[in-house]
Amino acid sequence: MASTYDQYREDVAGRANVTDTPELIRYYRELEELGTGALWTVANKIEPWEPASPSVPIIWRYNDLRDRVMRALELVTPEQAGRRVVYLANPARQDVVAAVGWLYSGLQVMAPGECASSHRHSASALRFIMEGEGAFTNVDGHKMTLGRNDFVLTPNGTWHEHGVAEGGTPCIWQDGLDIPLMNALDANFYEVHPDLNQAVTYPVDDSTATWAGAGLRPAGQDWSKRYSPLFKYEWEPTYEALQRYARVTDGSPYDGVHMDYMNPLTGGAVMSTIGASIQMLRPGERTRAHREVGNFVYQCAKGSGYSIINGQRFDWQERDIFVVPSWMFHEHCNASESEDACLFSFHDLPVMRALGLYRQEALAENGGHQPIAV
Amino acid sequence: MASTYDQYREDVAGRANVTDTPELIRYYRELEELGTGALWTVANKIEPWEPASPSVPIIWRYNDLRDRVMRALELVTPEQAGRRVVYLANPARQDVVAAVGWLYSGLQVMAPGECASSHRHSASALRFIMEGEGAFTNVDGHKMTLGRNDFVLTPNGTWHEHGVAEGGTPCIWQDGLDIPLMNALDANFYEVHPDLNQAVTYPVDDSTATWAGAGLRPAGQDWSKRYSPLFKYEWEPTYEALQRYARVTDGSPYDGVHMDYMNPLTGGAVMSTIGASIQMLRPGERTRAHREVGNFVYQCAKGSGYSIINGQRFDWQERDIFVVPSWMFHEHCNASESEDACLFSFHDLPVMRALGLYRQEALAENGGHQPIAV
Amino acid sequence: MASTYDQYREDVAGRANVTDTPELIRYYRELEELGTGALWTVANKIEPWEPASPSVPIIWRYNDLRDRVMRALELVTPEQAGRRVVYLANPARQDVVAAVGWLYSGLQVMAPGECASSHRHSASALRFIMEGEGAFTNVDGHKMTLGRNDFVLTPNGTWHEHGVAEGGTPCIWQDGLDIPLMNALDANFYEVHPDLNQAVTYPVDDSTATWAGAGLRPAGQDWSKRYSPLFKYEWEPTYEALQRYARVTDGSPYDGVHMDYMNPLTGGAVMSTIGASIQMLRPGERTRAHREVGNFVYQCAKGSGYSIINGQRFDWQERDIFVVPSWMFHEHCNASESEDACLFSFHDLPVMRALGLYRQEALAENGGHQPIAV
Amino acid sequence: MASTYDQYREDVAGRANVTDTPELIRYYRELEELGTGALWTVANKIEPWEPASPSVPIIWRYNDLRDRVMRALELVTPEQAGRRVVYLANPARQDVVAAVGWLYSGLQVMAPGECASSHRHSASALRFIMEGEGAFTNVDGHKMTLGRNDFVLTPNGTWHEHGVAEGGTPCIWQDGLDIPLMNALDANFYEVHPDLNQAVTYPVDDSTATWAGAGLRPAGQDWSKRYSPLFKYEWEPTYEALQRYARVTDGSPYDGVHMDYMNPLTGGAVMSTIGASIQMLRPGERTRAHREVGNFVYQCAKGSGYSIINGQRFDWQERDIFVVPSWMFHEHCNASESEDACLFSFHDLPVMRALGLYRQEALAENGGHQPIAV
Repeated sequence: MASTYDQYREDVAGRANVTDTPELIRYYRELEELGTGALWTVANKIEPWEPASPSVPIIWRYNDLRDRVMRALELVTPEQAGRRVVYLANPARQDVVAAVGWLYSGLQVMAPGECASSHRHSASALRFIMEGEGAFTNVDGHKMTLGRNDFVLTPNGTWHEHGVAEGGTPCIWQDGLDIPLMNALDANFYEVHPDLNQAVTYPVDDSTATWAGAGLRPAGQDWSKRYSPLFKYEWEPTYEALQRYARVTDGSPYDGVHMDYMNPLTGGAVMSTIGASIQMLRPGERTRAHREVGNFVYQCAKGSGYSIINGQRFDWQERDIFVVPSWMFHEHCNASESEDACLFSFHDLPVMRALGLYRQEALAENGGHQPIAV
Repeated sequence: MASTYDQYREDVAGRANVTDTPELIRYYRELEELGTGALWTVANKIEPWEPASPSVPIIWRYNDLRDRVMRALELVTPEQAGRRVVYLANPARQDVVAAVGWLYSGLQVMAPGECASSHRHSASALRFIMEGEGAFTNVDGHKMTLGRNDFVLTPNGTWHEHGVAEGGTPCIWQDGLDIPLMNALDANFYEVHPDLNQAVTYPVDDSTATWAGAGLRPAGQDWSKRYSPLFKYEWEPTYEALQRYARVTDGSPYDGVHMDYMNPLTGGAVMSTIGASIQMLRPGERTRAHREVGNFVYQCAKGSGYSIINGQRFDWQERDIFVVPSWMFHEHCNASESEDACLFSFHDLPVMRALGLYRQEALAENGGHQPIAV
Repeated sequence: MASTYDQYREDVAGRANVTDTPELIRYYRELEELGTGALWTVANKIEPWEPASPSVPIIWRYNDLRDRVMRALELVTPEQAGRRVVYLANPARQDVVAAVGWLYSGLQVMAPGECASSHRHSASALRFIMEGEGAFTNVDGHKMTLGRNDFVLTPNGTWHEHGVAEGGTPCIWQDGLDIPLMNALDANFYEVHPDLNQAVTYPVDDSTATWAGAGLRPAGQDWSKRYSPLFKYEWEPTYEALQRYARVTDGSPYDGVHMDYMNPLTGGAVMSTIGASIQMLRPGERTRAHREVGNFVYQCAKGSGYSIINGQRFDWQERDIFVVPSWMFHEHCNASESEDACLFSFHDLPVMRALGLYRQEALAENGGHQPIAV
Repeated sequence: MASTYDQYREDVAGRANVTDTPELIRYYRELEELGTGALWTVANKIEPWEPASPSVPIIWRYNDLRDRVMRALELVTPEQAGRRVVYLANPARQDVVAAVGWLYSGLQVMAPGECASSHRHSASALRFIMEGEGAFTNVDGHKMTLGRNDFVLTPNGTWHEHGVAEGGTPCIWQDGLDIPLMNALDANFYEVHPDLNQAVTYPVDDSTATWAGAGLRPAGQDWSKRYSPLFKYEWEPTYEALQRYARVTDGSPYDGVHMDYMNPLTGGAVMSTIGASIQMLRPGERTRAHREVGNFVYQCAKGSGYSIINGQRFDWQERDIFVVPSWMFHEHCNASESEDACLFSFHDLPVMRALGLYRQEALAENGGHQPIAV
């Protein structure tokens, strides 16, 4: 039971501005007993002028994390753990395991010869390979071999499992999922595969052999799923595409040479609820700030530099992971004058777009650059 | 800092099942210091086998609410309150002002001659008229006159304002919005109209005159908005449509004679994030139970009966409001043997469908009827 | 073998302009022997500056036709004729049975107690009821009773059959089909129902009872066909919709109060290849001329007036049928100062739109009115 | 005026079967005077049991054509001819300049230093490069350099022009357009560029640099046109895609390793009215016969073999062009036991699909192989 009800009032025409009186307080308490309340006591709180994300921008440095992640190899088996993952927790979000917004991320590690059990869930999932040789993922019978900076989907509803080949090395990859969103929407289902591990029912790497022909699709092959039939986006052609595109574009003022991973059959996002992008900052490139309705998890895939997020500077190098919460200004800088820098990111823009909520705004002041808070 | 980390373990193959040891607890604490954690300590919690809504089913009886709502007429003006509304608070949700899921609802009351100021916001909104003469809503210059059981949209992004004509009577209507969802998604914007009240720029009730021709649309009129151009769904033709449909259908086993209000240009939901439906239970009709991924707010528009939700019985009569949280079994019964009963509802199914999350399941046991918890 | 090849040359930069020479004529004949030709000898012919329809505008007056149509009742049975129809032949089209463009139309007559055999075909078909009591159509088991000015679909691929009830009177209706288009596209299939007549498997008139609720659709009923699930558009609600819309619109400058019959689940045309519209000219209303890529067959459903098509005046009264070929200017006038006039039309705009070919142009000169050729 | 009217009658229930009588003949002549006719005299003709294309299968051998095409270099200039093209005329189609169905094709030749004037039209157009160095096309300011077996779009409504660089060699390419369809639909517009030649306003080959990243698209670049933003499909990556796909697929029983060129933003056809495909027949591969609603123009891009079309065998080698009319059985054979063979084709399937008319049928008899007519 609140003792003051007028803490959110604003002296602005069209906004709630009611001062507590003894009579009103009595009225509010009567309402509470009925499982109700007076809208004007909370209206200005629940209808803010613009989004105010409860997440904070934060960076996790690979130098700090790598040893800890590797140590998990000795501490637990995949059989015990289900998944051997160190998750990233946004420090301002105690209510939920989230890196930012309703997005989850973690670092998974597996040893040669290991293979986790197969499961499926409502959450959409992706992996970005950080290090090691011999990693593989099996999605609905399609086995894929994975190398450094490869990006792979394990879409919602697909049976999937991961492992490392006998002759490989310990592998670490970043997981990205929208587990928090599925829970927030009361829509999360989970199943373990009845055989614990599924069979490989297609030629290895058939997904890329079939669907990665630029401007070409297999004739007569229908696809009605809501996610991309192309499950693996290999790094080499991705980096080549960035370089080719760089030759004919000035790039985005906010994001440099910026491409979205797409479903080749729709031109849309790779999955219904998570999208992913890759961007290249040319040597010395410094972008201008904008803000977007949407939450982003970045990993530096190549090079080094820094980003300014909501007035805070975050220096990053290869493998570091950082987040940009919704509606916070962000800008990026490649600190090297000779080498390009690449940022991989995944985000909830498909949700924002599906619901008609996406918008963005450039920072107008100061040449588009944020003052840095000290 | 948790002292036990293994509280969520499950002894099921494919699920996390790691017992705390001193070494592991030390490891977990090291992870915490880095803003990280071990997934297997929380995996079973954040990946439940099926959705477990934090909301509870609940009913608000109009007999209890009406006087309190009317009293607000004396206590605050629309100018002070912005909106003179008593909101409905799900008792299990302390974190947010929500009736169920991420849906907000409240009862708004206005007196003859009053007109609230105009605003717009990211939240989608609707009204269902409960009592009174002379209510009107103005949406982007389209003024609509409103009568009992009329259903009206004030879609996201539209300037809108409400009032009651000078010669009318005090009017109460139910508001439905997805304010909580907009906040949860970090996507909520709010603006007050620069003139405080907007002009009526179209003939009164032009929306229904233009877009409510069954199977007909005005030639050459394009519409690219994501919500219905038909803003008002009047009760009389709605009730007639239910009766006509009843003559040729057995109805849904779960919902009787059940129709969705639709965008006449797409056949889809009336707005991007909120849908609405009307259903008629024939005299004595008792439906079977099913559960759905989606949250529902019901209002009894006609007749009386009861619903069993998650094993609890809720008796309702005209104007009572109750909610069904996601993935809870629900079934309905018209208690009268002579009169039909009608339930209006609004829900978040458009969100579930847009993200590919909708599913439903019939109750298989006991002839499809839930045992009632005592 | 042509003797002159340069008949189409134009003295305009960018157009073919090659004069015959003996050497060229020898070359052209060599090409002909190889099953080839020189593009520049025909380029200006096959690439005209704008469309030049081979159809002509024409009117068929019901006064002239009615007796002849009725006489067919005595001359042939439905069993002999398959369909007892008098078709309308555009006088400028000897190559094909077409009223205009690739659209076919005819007047069908049936006597009480008759019922034609059931068939289906690639062509899309529609009926507009002209006179008589007791007509019915059965489409895929949905039987519909038909009255004056009712508009009914028998979409491509559906089993359908027509008849008149025992207690009725001789009935005449206009058929509209795209048989010529299906043939032109080499896509026409035809089948006779294995039982010659199909069963009525749904409640009579269930289509309107289910799908004609304005702004309402039956919940949980999916429909994946490419045509409207609403098969019958009754005249009474159609005429009411025109009147309601007339109260809030100035109407189209070219077509008065103009509405399209639509698929209520998509807002699009009633069938994939044929659309239909209804328009009301208010007393004394005279519209301005425009031209469109598309072919139109009109029937006067009410009142009288005239249309000017490509500079020719055509006076019409109830039941007269006339056509407007593609890209010919047309304007309409209601000759009565007291009564409204209604024109039903069907057209191939869905084809034009599906292929991205639709465009229109207003007549700029002379206040938008064509001079009438004498 | 016909003297017999009963030539199309069929003695099949549900089909028209009316014998001429003097009375009927008098009746038919009366109808003719009114611009009408009796449907039953033509119904069986205009509603065939299945499509019967007026086109015939035919092959044009490059050995026969090449010299004739080259000779045009001496006979006419692009300025005189507009386009210096030898068109391919289906011998059974006297009414129209078409290779098959409503598709036009021709061989265009240009000399180094030549550049044709720029124009645009309703017809969609494509080129497949047959020989020569230095060819280029400019589409709406996007200049593209073209090599052997490159496939390039000049979509409907785009300004386009072709030429050969000063330092090149005479170039021949195959043009494919749907000029006949645009005329048949009364929808053909043509314009010459006001400056005769347009400027190159983008970096050369920017279209492939921007849109040919497999599974990647430039972020933030919208595209609302109905044709592919990728205008050039280069041969090298196309052939590689075929080989990659061949490693993981058995291929189509009718078409071998078969891929469709696609719009990378929709997965659909490259243009609204013309699609294109590439297929590889593995050494010795012989496919089975099927027939489709759709018309096809093939060019052998690599290797040699034969196709059996409607029971006729057509032997082809590199650069030969042949056509398959709608609903005729066709099967292909690579005659080489060591080398693969590739067939490029373009077709009207996008039209058939847009209108819901596509269907196909396998030949059931004889192991799926047609007997060859002698």
